[in-house]
Amino acid sequence: MTITSFIPPQRTLMGPGPSDVSARVLSALARPTIGHLDPLFVGMMDEVKSLLQYAFQTKNEFTIALSAPGSAGMEACFVNLITPEDTVVVCKNGVFGARMIENVNRIGAKLVVVEGKWGRAVDPQALEQTLSKHPEAKFVAFVHAETSTGALSDAKLLCEIAQRFQCLTIVDAVTSLGGVELRVDEWGIDAIYSGSQKCLSCVPGISPISFSDKAVEVIKNRTRPVPSWFLDQSLVMAYWSGEGKRAYHHTAPVNSLYALHESLLMLKNEGLENSWQRHQLQHQALAKGLVELGLEFVVPTDERLPQLNTVYIPKGIDDAKVRSYLLNHYNLEIGAGLGEFAGKAWRIGLMGFGAKNENVALCLAALKDALAKA
Amino acid sequence: MTITSFIPPQRTLMGPGPSDVSARVLSALARPTIGHLDPLFVGMMDEVKSLLQYAFQTKNEFTIALSAPGSAGMEACFVNLITPEDTVVVCKNGVFGARMIENVNRIGAKLVVVEGKWGRAVDPQALEQTLSKHPEAKFVAFVHAETSTGALSDAKLLCEIAQRFQCLTIVDAVTSLGGVELRVDEWGIDAIYSGSQKCLSCVPGISPISFSDKAVEVIKNRTRPVPSWFLDQSLVMAYWSGEGKRAYHHTAPVNSLYALHESLLMLKNEGLENSWQRHQLQHQALAKGLVELGLEFVVPTDERLPQLNTVYIPKGIDDAKVRSYLLNHYNLEIGAGLGEFAGKAWRIGLMGFGAKNENVALCLAALKDALAKA
Repeated sequence: MTITSFIPPQRTLMGPGPSDVSARVLSALARPTIGHLDPLFVGMMDEVKSLLQYAFQTKNEFTIALSAPGSAGMEACFVNLITPEDTVVVCKNGVFGARMIENVNRIGAKLVVVEGKWGRAVDPQALEQTLSKHPEAKFVAFVHAETSTGALSDAKLLCEIAQRFQCLTIVDAVTSLGGVELRVDEWGIDAIYSGSQKCLSCVPGISPISFSDKAVEVIKNRTRPVPSWFLDQSLVMAYWSGEGKRAYHHTAPVNSLYALHESLLMLKNEGLENSWQRHQLQHQALAKGLVELGLEFVVPTDERLPQLNTVYIPKGIDDAKVRSYLLNHYNLEIGAGLGEFAGKAWRIGLMGFGAKNENVALCLAALKDALAKA
Repeated sequence: MTITSFIPPQRTLMGPGPSDVSARVLSALARPTIGHLDPLFVGMMDEVKSLLQYAFQTKNEFTIALSAPGSAGMEACFVNLITPEDTVVVCKNGVFGARMIENVNRIGAKLVVVEGKWGRAVDPQALEQTLSKHPEAKFVAFVHAETSTGALSDAKLLCEIAQRFQCLTIVDAVTSLGGVELRVDEWGIDAIYSGSQKCLSCVPGISPISFSDKAVEVIKNRTRPVPSWFLDQSLVMAYWSGEGKRAYHHTAPVNSLYALHESLLMLKNEGLENSWQRHQLQHQALAKGLVELGLEFVVPTDERLPQLNTVYIPKGIDDAKVRSYLLNHYNLEIGAGLGEFAGKAWRIGLMGFGAKNENVALCLAALKDALAKA
């Protein structure tokens, strides 16, 4: 095959992520590469840490950007904290809860599952009942914003319950960070991970993570080595510690971190609460329009993620045909269904930079056209 | 702290990596983000695969770009192939051989180490003797180009020996790929990993890997799950397979892959042999100048990596002061020593786009000035 430079089209990304990356962030991404141990780069990493602490609303000393996607961030939380002796309660209400289960199983820890409904929030009562039957449980893990269904769980309440049972919490904030209220310290979250490519509107490939002091203690007191060298956070801590000489662990993804720095700075300058409110307002406008088009939401109103709108594909409509039409005719990407919702639902993202009037208007107009033609 | 956009200086990167990234690759990096399941992106990934097959000189079907740095590439090779029952022979002649040992230990497999000298190639006779004493050995692992010392090992011969003893080979090509002769199929390498930020002169964060059909068989015949979900290549294969519908595993680092595509295309257009020759020629010019400055090479002539020149720091010279002067006065980065060579040697990279006349000239002139002032 003859290969030439790849020139991608200018899409509007309204799927479950990656979301639209602004020209400002792309321009930061393309700044000249410098060394990962360059004093100026090390200074920038301190700023990334401080900006991440703001985004997570935490004072956690251990708050870093992992050099790999959100699924590696999930794994970093699980493999560093959990050993085979531990009992872990996982609340499952979609694909990413199922992936947490996969992580627990590979560690060989004892697993207790709180089975939830697809398209619904995690049921706090079900968690409470499960914990009262399992006093040996040491961890509670759940997904704040289920990217596979568009459901938002009450992270504050779930953490309260977990704490009442002396459990540490592991929270998936891949799609929630920056898009809906999230307060790591106030809610007492012990380990949290996110992704760069959702409501931060940065390029994909980086996973912000944060561990509470209690979680760091658990890691420090491990006697069994973490199965993964790459994800062993006791080694990574030495690189991000900021005290004295940085210990080399691996080469940081320098340019992606420029982009993350810029996107976090944009979030800080807008203000976290303003960003949450913007996502909510844009969601309301989109939701109104989608209902007017005759589309039905999968998730009940008060459990909906503003940044990810999941609607049933109307009967008789060809899923792939509509999505292809939107892509080819309008350069507009919306997301297919995943897992139980494959072929049954669309996932329409309003994330970060993409949560704006023009995207809502384009999406509604294009979908109206596509549905009329389908 | 008040945080503003981070504007890095324009450095010349002549350390052990990241190497200088060309404006052409940076510009590819900053192209508009599209979805990781977009048909156009999937087509680009097929091209990345084909370009990687060229760079590795392999027809291996399983040739991909892992969404994480080289150290994750190393771990992917080890955790997918090796189970606790296996005996693994690791040839250690620097930091990265030691990291291989760390990987084997975390898997809990049986480890046999061929201890080598720092700054020297792996001794083929020592490998042969070790293998004749360990008929149970199933894998031989070694580093082709030791980034911590600048030593080049005879990968072809080491693979020949391993094959004579019916062992599969795992080869670290992080610093070698694109810079020195490397022929995966002809030499019979079974698992190989590299990094984007060395002789490919792409941004850091991606690890090209390739598995032979024999290695893929080993993975397919595993009964024990891979300890890491993120690095489980049986899951990743489904995403990169190119046959029919791609299975979602994680969100690919879209923009970094644009950059990798461009840097691999530049390598293809130059021609692999031409690139190897360019590295050799630039190395000769640099080496001549370094010797003229009175600097002494760590590695004997016929075991030297052209792309990484390791020289002893002259007696009485302040390591950190010289490197700071180069950085602050000339925007020139050279590498500190690592491991046994910390404080004792400098590592001067001539990698990929950086292996050119202007970098050699700048480095020699700047070093001359710095040494005179030190």
